[in-house]
Amino acid sequence: MASVFGERVRVSVFGESHGGGIGVVVDGLPAGMEISEDALYSFMARRKPGGSPFSTPRKESDRPTILSGLFEGHTTGFPLCATICNTDTRSGDYKALSDLPRPSHADYTAFLKWQGQADMRGGGHFSGRLTAPLCVAGGIALQILAQKGIFIGAHLLSVGNAKDQPYPMLPDADTLLAPGQKAFPVCDDRCGEAMQAEIMAAAKEKDSVGGTVECMVIGLPAGLGDPMFEGMENRIAGAVFGIPAIKGIEFGSGFGCAAMRGSQCNDPFCIDENGKIATETNHSGGIQGGITNGMPLRFCVAVKPTPSIGQPQKTVSLSGHTEETLVIQGRHDPCIAHRAVPVLEAVTALVILDLLAEQ
Amino acid sequence: MASVFGERVRVSVFGESHGGGIGVVVDGLPAGMEISEDALYSFMARRKPGGSPFSTPRKESDRPTILSGLFEGHTTGFPLCATICNTDTRSGDYKALSDLPRPSHADYTAFLKWQGQADMRGGGHFSGRLTAPLCVAGGIALQILAQKGIFIGAHLLSVGNAKDQPYPMLPDADTLLAPGQKAFPVCDDRCGEAMQAEIMAAAKEKDSVGGTVECMVIGLPAGLGDPMFEGMENRIAGAVFGIPAIKGIEFGSGFGCAAMRGSQCNDPFCIDENGKIATETNHSGGIQGGITNGMPLRFCVAVKPTPSIGQPQKTVSLSGHTEETLVIQGRHDPCIAHRAVPVLEAVTALVILDLLAEQ
Amino acid sequence: MASVFGERVRVSVFGESHGGGIGVVVDGLPAGMEISEDALYSFMARRKPGGSPFSTPRKESDRPTILSGLFEGHTTGFPLCATICNTDTRSGDYKALSDLPRPSHADYTAFLKWQGQADMRGGGHFSGRLTAPLCVAGGIALQILAQKGIFIGAHLLSVGNAKDQPYPMLPDADTLLAPGQKAFPVCDDRCGEAMQAEIMAAAKEKDSVGGTVECMVIGLPAGLGDPMFEGMENRIAGAVFGIPAIKGIEFGSGFGCAAMRGSQCNDPFCIDENGKIATETNHSGGIQGGITNGMPLRFCVAVKPTPSIGQPQKTVSLSGHTEETLVIQGRHDPCIAHRAVPVLEAVTALVILDLLAEQ
Amino acid sequence: MASVFGERVRVSVFGESHGGGIGVVVDGLPAGMEISEDALYSFMARRKPGGSPFSTPRKESDRPTILSGLFEGHTTGFPLCATICNTDTRSGDYKALSDLPRPSHADYTAFLKWQGQADMRGGGHFSGRLTAPLCVAGGIALQILAQKGIFIGAHLLSVGNAKDQPYPMLPDADTLLAPGQKAFPVCDDRCGEAMQAEIMAAAKEKDSVGGTVECMVIGLPAGLGDPMFEGMENRIAGAVFGIPAIKGIEFGSGFGCAAMRGSQCNDPFCIDENGKIATETNHSGGIQGGITNGMPLRFCVAVKPTPSIGQPQKTVSLSGHTEETLVIQGRHDPCIAHRAVPVLEAVTALVILDLLAEQ
Repeated sequence: MASVFGERVRVSVFGESHGGGIGVVVDGLPAGMEISEDALYSFMARRKPGGSPFSTPRKESDRPTILSGLFEGHTTGFPLCATICNTDTRSGDYKALSDLPRPSHADYTAFLKWQGQADMRGGGHFSGRLTAPLCVAGGIALQILAQKGIFIGAHLLSVGNAKDQPYPMLPDADTLLAPGQKAFPVCDDRCGEAMQAEIMAAAKEKDSVGGTVECMVIGLPAGLGDPMFEGMENRIAGAVFGIPAIKGIEFGSGFGCAAMRGSQCNDPFCIDENGKIATETNHSGGIQGGITNGMPLRFCVAVKPTPSIGQPQKTVSLSGHTEETLVIQGRHDPCIAHRAVPVLEAVTALVILDLLAEQ
Repeated sequence: MASVFGERVRVSVFGESHGGGIGVVVDGLPAGMEISEDALYSFMARRKPGGSPFSTPRKESDRPTILSGLFEGHTTGFPLCATICNTDTRSGDYKALSDLPRPSHADYTAFLKWQGQADMRGGGHFSGRLTAPLCVAGGIALQILAQKGIFIGAHLLSVGNAKDQPYPMLPDADTLLAPGQKAFPVCDDRCGEAMQAEIMAAAKEKDSVGGTVECMVIGLPAGLGDPMFEGMENRIAGAVFGIPAIKGIEFGSGFGCAAMRGSQCNDPFCIDENGKIATETNHSGGIQGGITNGMPLRFCVAVKPTPSIGQPQKTVSLSGHTEETLVIQGRHDPCIAHRAVPVLEAVTALVILDLLAEQ
Repeated sequence: MASVFGERVRVSVFGESHGGGIGVVVDGLPAGMEISEDALYSFMARRKPGGSPFSTPRKESDRPTILSGLFEGHTTGFPLCATICNTDTRSGDYKALSDLPRPSHADYTAFLKWQGQADMRGGGHFSGRLTAPLCVAGGIALQILAQKGIFIGAHLLSVGNAKDQPYPMLPDADTLLAPGQKAFPVCDDRCGEAMQAEIMAAAKEKDSVGGTVECMVIGLPAGLGDPMFEGMENRIAGAVFGIPAIKGIEFGSGFGCAAMRGSQCNDPFCIDENGKIATETNHSGGIQGGITNGMPLRFCVAVKPTPSIGQPQKTVSLSGHTEETLVIQGRHDPCIAHRAVPVLEAVTALVILDLLAEQ
Repeated sequence: MASVFGERVRVSVFGESHGGGIGVVVDGLPAGMEISEDALYSFMARRKPGGSPFSTPRKESDRPTILSGLFEGHTTGFPLCATICNTDTRSGDYKALSDLPRPSHADYTAFLKWQGQADMRGGGHFSGRLTAPLCVAGGIALQILAQKGIFIGAHLLSVGNAKDQPYPMLPDADTLLAPGQKAFPVCDDRCGEAMQAEIMAAAKEKDSVGGTVECMVIGLPAGLGDPMFEGMENRIAGAVFGIPAIKGIEFGSGFGCAAMRGSQCNDPFCIDENGKIATETNHSGGIQGGITNGMPLRFCVAVKPTPSIGQPQKTVSLSGHTEETLVIQGRHDPCIAHRAVPVLEAVTALVILDLLAEQ
């Protein structure tokens, strides 16, 4: 029951890295919404590997087949199912690993939980490849939200020690979506060059590097969300940790708030230039008491370095109970933070669409 | 439906700051577990205000009445309900505020969501006072977990710029629980003095200050949790943001991972001194692929400064649509991070008890 | 997690028959709805025992205390908690029974599930007394629905072999609510006399008797409900079996449909006298494909005879594993079907309020 | 969110009658269970149309493709997805109907709910064809349960006025499963002939006929289920009404209990021939207080006549708001009750597997 989230818009992800196929069912989409399959493929291309030296050379044909829920370019109101075939898999690469869990992968915990019964070839259901169907579902959600004037954008905020400019406090849709239209999703391309240099440096040393991603949502109605355990933070965090490799999330000024005084951190109310109630700062990230206040919703996540690296690593033999050295063969990303950018937009879109469906 | 969380152990919190009473129902506790009411009251005393210069002087009689679910010192297996009366409330303090939302409180978002219909005296259902029933529920959960060899401890990791020592990588139960037995919950009392100085300095300037809290769980079975959207991180984060003022959460090395190389961040497997499989480091925080690996589960949260401060602040009149200056009267904590410590333990205990009930 | 139902309006029932008290939390009520406590007490009086020779002489002071969620006669938008004290309990009556499970009660299954650890005095959490808090929650829901033009009524359709007249196909609100305003909730009082004679006859022989209840909802918007597993039937049935002693439910012509031809059972569409689309018959009970069609929603339930009877019965000793004879002392209803009438209205109201909250 | 059910074993059904395909995702299956695809196809053949004069001549190639969750004949522990292509569809048959809702179908309620936006060709997502993926999921669940010694069987108890013999009170597995191995699923073949005569008679008159189905589960552990809203009855009823055309359900003696005395209806406890606690009768249907008591779980459902009949019927024009006469062309079953038999077994198996996963 773990690969499911959402209350009124329910997303159910399935598939293993080296099985017959992967996919997603989305139950609860509104009927009659226009969906462009081309726009969907463009969105999906953003997470696709193989497109650049910064990504794994495994070539996926991530083109989904939509079995249900779409008819003549519109949602039918019934559950949408999309499947993606698995083709370019090389199980041989992983076979020897089954006894030697890769550090900081789910190999060992899956072994414990399923007592060796789970199909873990290629990472099984834990594979980053499972983010492709999330992007199908989320790509559709993004199109629906855009029709309601809600836009979600994200960009790489840092890679290793190289940093991008953050979004401005009040971005318009163009500014928000600009990084997603670039080959490397940053606000400031010079910053992006420094980040790419960090990735190349790590790759050269058969190593990998982590990063952070900033995400913002504009156009959200104020008054959205619920108190306590169903606040915006709870819902977004509860879903976002389903993206592999995410290890932290913060809303508004987040961990920065912890070092602030109240007089700095509080967002004073004002009447803005359009005569609407707004706040002068947005340390709250657009959320108070779990409920949106009309300012942009903002959060950042931390993405750990790809755990698959080419260097020899210490591990243990599960059968022999001995310490061993492991060299992971195969094809791996020196960084996954930039590929996490569209996935984060996708998951955020699904959470928000779910919430709107409850109103 | 917002004040409810958990799947098999379901917690439902109720009450408004200035209504007849507050409380909690916990459905799904195991039957026949021994519960000490004295130990429960001691635990609750840890979040109680009025005990020190660092907290609000409002005196709560937080003694809960347990209406059901306990019989002769044991859980009955049926839903437990505990209620706490509201006595020392001064609604006059808040009356004038109803038209002037306090910055970075839920006043404005509640006004938007309920169109002015919600009873927001004293913060209403958003009041920090609602963490008292959470502590009743969580205090009981902690006792049940301790009987299963599972211990949860937390401490203030920082206040403003003053920092405590983190827990050691492999704490025993005594080390873990030691901060909770002090008047000021830190590992290193000299660090605690610096933190208290930060709080006093803020108070003196009619200001407040934020902080971070580190939480650890030991004794958890390995293999606990589920992939994707029901991982340990999802479940804990999804609940923890229900605690007022929390703005961020990170697991293991969290945001620190983002600046690391994979070769640093990966936790190499080893055979430990007891001959068990372990990891040499714990950047993963005891979780891989959403599932526990047998190492201590570790996470940190960011707590923003108390939004109620004595300084004049900018706000708006909801009726007049004009910018106004607000001076909040009444009694407020210059810091709530140390009071969040037992609440964090409580919520974590409930999440883990829920998860164990599903196995 | 068993004593909870609803998605957006979530009801959590607590308490044991002989514990400190019983009650309910309702999370998700709309804010600002006017609630009359007098009307609520009148509604609750309908299920109260001790009012007539047809009911147990146990006198309950079922007056609830509302701790939260109501302020100055209006819902606050936050969770409502109501508690009812347990006073007139005589645990002595039940003590000897703990080793001798009462036939067709939950004593034995509770013993199996909780291994003797549950507090089963007076039936524990399984007691019919727990329907009192359901009536608090449902009585409030009924008031809210009435303000939206939705009315729910029920009456005894049969007791033993004595039958009442069914509701007309298209009742107005007065007709629907009339039985609930009588001491004995039937449409036709002469039928009611025959039913009462059945109850008296059973009581005289230290026996009990079952019955059926018909329930109808008018004023529902058409198009309410969802396909497949969240249809109106699924939701109502999923909740209604939470009322003790209910053993069957049928919608529209229900089991009667099984013996019909399609040409009889299909409801032909027509334009009614007000120019609206309607159906000429209502074998569907106002539901097609799980969704309301604008006709009255109709269903019936079967209520088994009170399992507590004064006659000697065969049972077993749980400790001795021997067959024994049991004579149940204490105070018991010769029929509970008429007391189930308001409870059925209450639960139905909660299901519908929940569904409306999702729209 | 309507086409989803289950808590720990979660079933998500998708597809429209005339879309690209239909299917199911089952999340939460245990890992390492042996599944025979041949046995699954045999099970699915039981609901397949086209096999007899009693069913629609539409030929479906119901052979599912299993995309994930199975590897080398064993469950992987990850979500299982099975898809079935739609091939033999003739949308022309239904096109004219879009303005003339078929009586007692979901056409009109779907029109109301989705304002004409849903793809309702062939009944859309409401089509009986969607029970095929339910049989994939349930067929796998039945295999898993059988490995645990739990067997589920069902048979036609009546068609129109013709009745089968009920199952004996304590059937063995062979007796339970025997009807399912026949072309016409009854206990007593002579009764089956009378039923088939009823179906043929209805077909001859371009009419259809309803029926009832009895279902039993043996081998269930005692003590399974939960009180109040998560009892066995709630869970089974909550799912079973997801099967199209079911209008009623009763447990044990069900509606028959309503006419009984307590002294008849109560199930006296005894020590059975194996020295185990049992009951002498089973009016409770194996459930007390929502929890299994170790006796066979028994329930019956009412299936209405197929609403599609060849006779002219009264309907209305949605666009013209006039009364019209409708003649449904196309291929339809004169009875669907016998095809509901395996579907009922399938859904019951999924509910029970879900419940076992929670223990």
